[in-house]
Amino acid sequence: MEASVTWAGGPASLRFVALPELERIRALDAPPADRAAVFADACRLNVLYMIARAGSGHIGTSFSSIDVVSWLHLEVLGEGERYYSSKGHDAPGLYSVLIALGRLPFEKLEGLRRLGGLPGHPDVLSTPEVVTNTGSLGMGISKAKGFVLADRLAGRSGRVFVLTGDGELQEGQFWESLASAANRGLHEITAIVDHNRIQSDFWVADVSDLGDLQRKVEAFGWAVGRCDGNDPHSLGPTLAGLERGAPDRPKLLIADTLKGAGVSFMEPHGLPPGGDELYAYHSGAPSPDEYARAVEEIEERLTRRLESLGVSPLALEAAEAPGRSAPRSPQRLVPAYGEALAELADAEPRLVALDADLLLDTGLVPFRKRHPERFFECGIAEQDMVSQAAAMALTGLLPAVHSFGCFLSTRPNEQIYNQCTEGTKVIYAGSLVGLAPGGPGHSHQSVRDISALGAMPGMSLLEPASEHEARLCLEWAVRDAPGSVYIRLVSVPWDLGFDPPRAERLVPGRGEIVRAGADALLVGAGPVLLSQAYAAAERLAPRGVDCMIIALPWLRDVDGGWLAEKAAGAPIFCLDNHYASGGQGDAVAAALAAQDALPVGPVRRLAVDRVPECGTNDEVLHAHGLDAAGIAARVEAAMPARVQPVA
Amino acid sequence: MEASVTWAGGPASLRFVALPELERIRALDAPPADRAAVFADACRLNVLYMIARAGSGHIGTSFSSIDVVSWLHLEVLGEGERYYSSKGHDAPGLYSVLIALGRLPFEKLEGLRRLGGLPGHPDVLSTPEVVTNTGSLGMGISKAKGFVLADRLAGRSGRVFVLTGDGELQEGQFWESLASAANRGLHEITAIVDHNRIQSDFWVADVSDLGDLQRKVEAFGWAVGRCDGNDPHSLGPTLAGLERGAPDRPKLLIADTLKGAGVSFMEPHGLPPGGDELYAYHSGAPSPDEYARAVEEIEERLTRRLESLGVSPLALEAAEAPGRSAPRSPQRLVPAYGEALAELADAEPRLVALDADLLLDTGLVPFRKRHPERFFECGIAEQDMVSQAAAMALTGLLPAVHSFGCFLSTRPNEQIYNQCTEGTKVIYAGSLVGLAPGGPGHSHQSVRDISALGAMPGMSLLEPASEHEARLCLEWAVRDAPGSVYIRLVSVPWDLGFDPPRAERLVPGRGEIVRAGADALLVGAGPVLLSQAYAAAERLAPRGVDCMIIALPWLRDVDGGWLAEKAAGAPIFCLDNHYASGGQGDAVAAALAAQDALPVGPVRRLAVDRVPECGTNDEVLHAHGLDAAGIAARVEAAMPARVQPVA
Repeated sequence: MEASVTWAGGPASLRFVALPELERIRALDAPPADRAAVFADACRLNVLYMIARAGSGHIGTSFSSIDVVSWLHLEVLGEGERYYSSKGHDAPGLYSVLIALGRLPFEKLEGLRRLGGLPGHPDVLSTPEVVTNTGSLGMGISKAKGFVLADRLAGRSGRVFVLTGDGELQEGQFWESLASAANRGLHEITAIVDHNRIQSDFWVADVSDLGDLQRKVEAFGWAVGRCDGNDPHSLGPTLAGLERGAPDRPKLLIADTLKGAGVSFMEPHGLPPGGDELYAYHSGAPSPDEYARAVEEIEERLTRRLESLGVSPLALEAAEAPGRSAPRSPQRLVPAYGEALAELADAEPRLVALDADLLLDTGLVPFRKRHPERFFECGIAEQDMVSQAAAMALTGLLPAVHSFGCFLSTRPNEQIYNQCTEGTKVIYAGSLVGLAPGGPGHSHQSVRDISALGAMPGMSLLEPASEHEARLCLEWAVRDAPGSVYIRLVSVPWDLGFDPPRAERLVPGRGEIVRAGADALLVGAGPVLLSQAYAAAERLAPRGVDCMIIALPWLRDVDGGWLAEKAAGAPIFCLDNHYASGGQGDAVAAALAAQDALPVGPVRRLAVDRVPECGTNDEVLHAHGLDAAGIAARVEAAMPARVQPVA
Repeated sequence: MEASVTWAGGPASLRFVALPELERIRALDAPPADRAAVFADACRLNVLYMIARAGSGHIGTSFSSIDVVSWLHLEVLGEGERYYSSKGHDAPGLYSVLIALGRLPFEKLEGLRRLGGLPGHPDVLSTPEVVTNTGSLGMGISKAKGFVLADRLAGRSGRVFVLTGDGELQEGQFWESLASAANRGLHEITAIVDHNRIQSDFWVADVSDLGDLQRKVEAFGWAVGRCDGNDPHSLGPTLAGLERGAPDRPKLLIADTLKGAGVSFMEPHGLPPGGDELYAYHSGAPSPDEYARAVEEIEERLTRRLESLGVSPLALEAAEAPGRSAPRSPQRLVPAYGEALAELADAEPRLVALDADLLLDTGLVPFRKRHPERFFECGIAEQDMVSQAAAMALTGLLPAVHSFGCFLSTRPNEQIYNQCTEGTKVIYAGSLVGLAPGGPGHSHQSVRDISALGAMPGMSLLEPASEHEARLCLEWAVRDAPGSVYIRLVSVPWDLGFDPPRAERLVPGRGEIVRAGADALLVGAGPVLLSQAYAAAERLAPRGVDCMIIALPWLRDVDGGWLAEKAAGAPIFCLDNHYASGGQGDAVAAALAAQDALPVGPVRRLAVDRVPECGTNDEVLHAHGLDAAGIAARVEAAMPARVQPVA
């Protein structure tokens, strides 16, 4: 779950472990495994601090893997050797370890998920200590092979340690990557599975069971070991034994861990397998109370451990929790979509829903509750999900397929095309689209999905600006659409700042005027940029530039004649919560360029101009010039001289 | 290898088995396995006939699998049960079986790879007897799961038999699809691996060895059997035993076959594993001599078999081989690219090349010969290939990554994005792009790649029109490009009909005027549509419409000011060997729409308007209105009234 969670603040102070104390731990004269356990717990405190400050971040997986990450960095990795996490969302754990080692500036502790700070998922350009960009799953071992082959070509040698999730192993690329590593004898690679048995919010066994993992991986020619991944006393010898036992083969260590390890109430002891109850600490910040209890438990354990090593307890530093504002009357598109889907399914028995381990984040809880036999959980296996849906559609069903936009539009891209060529209809609902939330970083900021899906034959692409429009989009997709439909959904609750469009139904290719004005036309889809455009227009009006704003949910197949008539020759600004290339602006520009009956003013695009920044939503919109101020400035600067306030 | 191969014709007649003889075989009073063997051989004769007529098609795999396909259709499949091939390029085998069963009109035998005939890969819309569209690999078992789940939901039951290749098993989706089939107990599914041990042109073991396949698949919870897949006497009992032995599990049968089975010189007996020699009958039509020898061998065997069953030999019908014209002075872009790559690598030691089992078709033979240590064969594993290249680039290498455009732009779409976000440079060379060759059908006609890759941050997209321009594109990519580059290569040798562009170097965003004219501007990239545009302009000139033609190799980042100046207000026609949406025309329209200094005429797009037809190149271009006649007609019809021949 990536939605930003509000840290309520309250009277609680946050607490962190400062650098001198971290250095004291590293210098401890103690058995390595004991020292590593203390080090990992100190890093846990700093993970909690970072995530509480940021208001979001993945605690569960940072904690399950942090003993492995600590052990590798303290005792295993040598010069020129690489470690990275393939799943990537355990980045707070890695960051806290690198900070504790002095390899990242200590002040970065304040900067998780902030502009210029540490991105929600690892990024080599903003954080050179990071080995490779991860966050989209399943790429880790392929990359390890690339590193090793490049090293061998250059006459270098050095081991590569890759951490993977266990849910991540549902991705086909993991299995695709195994064979050639064994065939080429890439013994430099050790993969470590953070086997915490919970993916996102449910047990792996309930989502898509991995079966006998050891047997599977051994069948691919890898050497496999297994240990308690939260105990350095078990980790160290098992890793060493695996290395000795398989000097010429790639190795995989199944590290049995607990999600949320190290904080008893974050470990899934009370979570019954097979049930509907969610694991609560996959992502999102803890409440102030949870934060305080977690710190207390770790601190007590640390004190005991240090005492047993004969040294004094840790002194924690205190800091205030930052305040955070919440939207006042936000549009919540994903729940609106999800409710509509569950309701429409009553009247449309052909409707079935498929999900790739994002039940909550794609709004499917109501559908699953209401139509359990028509809900199919596919696990983190988007290619497999889409091809299953394609076959279901061939039998006459109407499948609705769900994931985050960044994954749904890309991972099964060829499978979606294959489905479209069959002339069937499938609804693809991609959530978490656009720049916001800005915290997870570019692996999750879906600003390329319109382009990636924009040329699927017969597919309509829609992006609603409001809950009402989300329902209209789905109704149109289910009842009227001649072919497949992509529905692009902003996930973060968002204040529009204007009365949402209220049409009774969608008119293909056309939108709604949400603000009248004659000097310029601003066109866009979705709540994030339309809200900023509206605020920009309100700023520009007193300056003599009166902007019309059209909410245009159609991302392709734009009615150019209708739009040209509305624009009446005024300059047109296309807002794209997406890269300029391939976005809605391309479709608008092309539809207008084909007009020869009406005069059309120049068409400019205000769009994402580079790989998205990571930060708060405000920071990110501002950095890309797509907040109200940026839009107002760019519109005003581009207005032709002829547009002047009329006396 | 998909390039169209010329059937030289000559005096040889083609021969086929007519319907009455096929019906006689089906009615044979003989043991089922004996009847099936005769039936399969008769179908082999018709496969040869179809492919010889078409001038291309996959003999090797049609022959390796045809005993399985025959047995299933004659003896196994019941009402409502499904069979399809996941690899799909064995379609001629399936077609000949369906024709022999009377399930496809007999006259379709004349129509392989022809407009309105039988497409190169299976297609449900043009051939309703086909179960699902295949041709892009690895989707078969996922689809089988979708069929079974939909059937169960509807209260239907019925088995699904899926044929897969063995090279195909290198695709991650195959492994991704296995787990849930076992977890859900989808016993209705039987996958049959056509284990002919040769993929495209080389031994599977040399490309990317599958290891112990049985052990691997069993580890995923499937029941596995093994038999001689070219012998119905072995097939039948093994299939039946597998079914009895695993009533509650999905099943996989490893059918050991010979590529080209049934024609001794098409079987790979003399092909040494580990060598550079190619298997010669993967695709492409046989020579007249090979055709005659193959028919003779099969006919002799059929006669013996029928004799031993006490019935008279088959009477074959004769038909003339169709003539075929070859290009006179064609541009061969892929070999030009490949030679340039090998040469540039001499001066650029960072250059390495990666391939996904298309060594010949991507022009890599010279590179591999010249720089064997810098060549990496990745097998049919595009995601794995791209992520390996991404890691190599992080170490400072300059990887060039190769596959067909249809696969390269889609299968590893997210992996390419991940690489681009790292700010490194990788060259992606996609061949077989556009409508031609028209024979393989839409799974291979890459007309969506520009859209799929069009919004990769920092990536330049280029399509050369000539051998010279192919070299310029690669030189620019290696020496000058600031980020990653996609080079889009037409594979089929093509006559331009005009002197190819001869610039010394590429100028970013700009092209070359290959024909002067003031009434309209036609813009495009690549030899196929530029040749048609040129011929169209020659037709239009005497009718008073004088067209300028610009060869614009930049598919994105078009210099709109330069283009507007050249157009000087004339109507502009963008030619896209691609869907209109997301093609070069979008980039041109957007670049021109942003102009306000110069008057810009209307911009119209002549592009692929629907899922591409399958047929000869001429048929396909004509069907889409993209041959010279179609372009001329559409340009003339769209010319504004003001353009009249000047007296």
